[in-house]
Amino acid sequence: MSTQAARPKLKSVAVNGERLWHSLMALATIGATEKGGVARLALTALDGQGRDLVVRWASEEDLLVTVDQIGNVFMRREGRNPSLAPIVAGSHLDTQPNGGKFDGNYGVLAALEVVRTLNEHGIETEAPLEVVIWTNEEGSRFVPVMMGSGVFCGAHTLESAYLATDRDGRCVRDELGAIGYAGEETPGAHPIGAYFEAHIEQGPVLEAEATTIGVVTGVLGLRWYDCTVLGTEAHAGPTPMAERRDALQTASAIMQEVVAIARRHAPEGRGTVGMVDVFPNSRNVIPGRVRFSVDLRHADGRTLDAMEGELKAFIARSIQTFGLDIELAQVSHFAPSVFDSGCVQCVEDAARALGYSHRRMASGAGHDAVYVARVAPAAMIFVPCKDGISHNEIEDAKPEDLSAGCNVLLHAMLAKAY
Amino acid sequence: MSTQAARPKLKSVAVNGERLWHSLMALATIGATEKGGVARLALTALDGQGRDLVVRWASEEDLLVTVDQIGNVFMRREGRNPSLAPIVAGSHLDTQPNGGKFDGNYGVLAALEVVRTLNEHGIETEAPLEVVIWTNEEGSRFVPVMMGSGVFCGAHTLESAYLATDRDGRCVRDELGAIGYAGEETPGAHPIGAYFEAHIEQGPVLEAEATTIGVVTGVLGLRWYDCTVLGTEAHAGPTPMAERRDALQTASAIMQEVVAIARRHAPEGRGTVGMVDVFPNSRNVIPGRVRFSVDLRHADGRTLDAMEGELKAFIARSIQTFGLDIELAQVSHFAPSVFDSGCVQCVEDAARALGYSHRRMASGAGHDAVYVARVAPAAMIFVPCKDGISHNEIEDAKPEDLSAGCNVLLHAMLAKAY
Repeated sequence: MSTQAARPKLKSVAVNGERLWHSLMALATIGATEKGGVARLALTALDGQGRDLVVRWASEEDLLVTVDQIGNVFMRREGRNPSLAPIVAGSHLDTQPNGGKFDGNYGVLAALEVVRTLNEHGIETEAPLEVVIWTNEEGSRFVPVMMGSGVFCGAHTLESAYLATDRDGRCVRDELGAIGYAGEETPGAHPIGAYFEAHIEQGPVLEAEATTIGVVTGVLGLRWYDCTVLGTEAHAGPTPMAERRDALQTASAIMQEVVAIARRHAPEGRGTVGMVDVFPNSRNVIPGRVRFSVDLRHADGRTLDAMEGELKAFIARSIQTFGLDIELAQVSHFAPSVFDSGCVQCVEDAARALGYSHRRMASGAGHDAVYVARVAPAAMIFVPCKDGISHNEIEDAKPEDLSAGCNVLLHAMLAKAY
Repeated sequence: MSTQAARPKLKSVAVNGERLWHSLMALATIGATEKGGVARLALTALDGQGRDLVVRWASEEDLLVTVDQIGNVFMRREGRNPSLAPIVAGSHLDTQPNGGKFDGNYGVLAALEVVRTLNEHGIETEAPLEVVIWTNEEGSRFVPVMMGSGVFCGAHTLESAYLATDRDGRCVRDELGAIGYAGEETPGAHPIGAYFEAHIEQGPVLEAEATTIGVVTGVLGLRWYDCTVLGTEAHAGPTPMAERRDALQTASAIMQEVVAIARRHAPEGRGTVGMVDVFPNSRNVIPGRVRFSVDLRHADGRTLDAMEGELKAFIARSIQTFGLDIELAQVSHFAPSVFDSGCVQCVEDAARALGYSHRRMASGAGHDAVYVARVAPAAMIFVPCKDGISHNEIEDAKPEDLSAGCNVLLHAMLAKAY
């Protein structure tokens, strides 16, 4: 039987959405919280139990499991041509302390569901397929975020990742060993032909537009800053307005500008002040010092440069206007990530062929795919989540949307692997 | 010898500035902090020691000491006509946790220095003179502030003041007894013919203008509010600007308006946001809730009404513009206090007669005189303090200014008592 003859059959292959849902719910019992969420922090015993469950399911599908030194787990379904680089899909199993059932978990189990479906239908692929679990994407217990994929792509050294400690002083190396996921393979030595990651959107766009599939073209670049305004602490009563050096007055003007900058670069511009500390934070004392975070994002690196320029110019004018000292320190940054056009096209073609409403969009949040994209062609598939909420126990998604995203993943992978 | 014959001599009477300074420094050793300040919280053992020292000094001047049930201490120098209501001066001895040497302490010791000077010169007065120590002006350990004078004037009941507890659960009644200042006299039963309070300005105006004496005409009215903006917590990355309900964006606009309102009512308008709490206060989460304090002050009650009206109108417009819920709750208020014109005139006349530079001004902060003014003619005398700083260990004032204020106090009291 030639591959040509088999192709027509493939178009009608569909994943088992109910099986996917039940697997998600079964996995969500490990670390389940009272409010219906999941607390399964990276490299805890619960993370180990979650991994064990998925690995058991993988073994039931005859997948070959290998683990690398940072604990990334690759579960391989052999292809007709084992020398081809595998087509990989997955995400992460660790969650935020008050996380939900879908973030990360969906990407891993959707990939597993693709394999189950192909096994069920006896469909072979030319290239091998692999399901991957990346270690510590959330960064809640151990920083940095996206640790497993970051080490895999060479953004961080294995040694630095091993030394990361949690609040109790426990380090990644020891905790990997404790849960039995300190593997032998050198991170990054594992070839990847193409990478797909299905994920809930974590934003409100798809739901608001009643669109089923987000064809993710890349990830917004991000710059994080700490801004500190130094004024003079003084009594709120006796100090006339003209004599004040009110750090909060200046800080709140900059906070307004952060939002204004992002609005000037709509729709992909983002500007957020999420964290504010006022000193001495007393009702009748004019603030002498205010420190706040600034988060600027955009899909285009040059526009992000421009946004930063606007922020710095506003701060320079504020120093002139208010006469206070203002410091802006960059504390983190990620360049915008543009996904492989071929992989993006596979996702879009699959969504169109399956008749799902879809739109191209950039991801506002970082994902393992950002790092994988540095070493292999990659793309992502978004599905709507309720009210755009994630990193929260009430995180929710519809079974039919999760199933749709999984079907898109199936056909995108087949387009690359068949 | 008639009183007429004695009058010319009085004009040249002056206090002993050096003695006043040494008394201030001696008192400041009780509760002295490493950085040169004083930590002598109300009704602590240190407060008891401070009171004991001043009472001992008063006894050395043959003053008759009476204590009322809330611990206010009256130290009386008898007049030729004991049936006249006494001319009273004083302030408080308690300090902030990181307080200075002058706030309150100066007002008490300046009054004592007036008595010492008159004794030294053998000058009798028609009306009795009294030095008063009011209990717990600062409100740091026990709320409310200005407790002793507040009970004295009937603003608070003795019972409610007795029940106030500190963080360790100790109550005012017990702590008064513990330091030996639970007196017998009914608060408020003590007649006051006129009241003067000398105080450091706690603001920058006199120093900036190189003016020695502030003739205090009243105290700014004050309104305290808590403002809460309720938005929707969401991820900073995936949420487009147009979809956001950013509580901090709205809150920072209101913060800007608080300052703008006060500036529109210069020079006596004051508008301060001193305290801000952002939830969840995370770098990459759009704030879902921001609570902040608003402090509005003005010398004129109707203007204060207008300022409140402008704030409420801005909030109403913000609700329209941003679509978020905004709550404004008043948590405290003091009506503007206008001091007795006769007493104010006595202060001004004394400053002029003594050749000190002086200006009329309102006090931005509350003082015991605000409550005393409800039951007796009252006024205050301000002297400059370094950089306008108080409630701080680095609080400082010049001996010559403190001496000048004390001379003004002397002659203002004589004008009323002689």
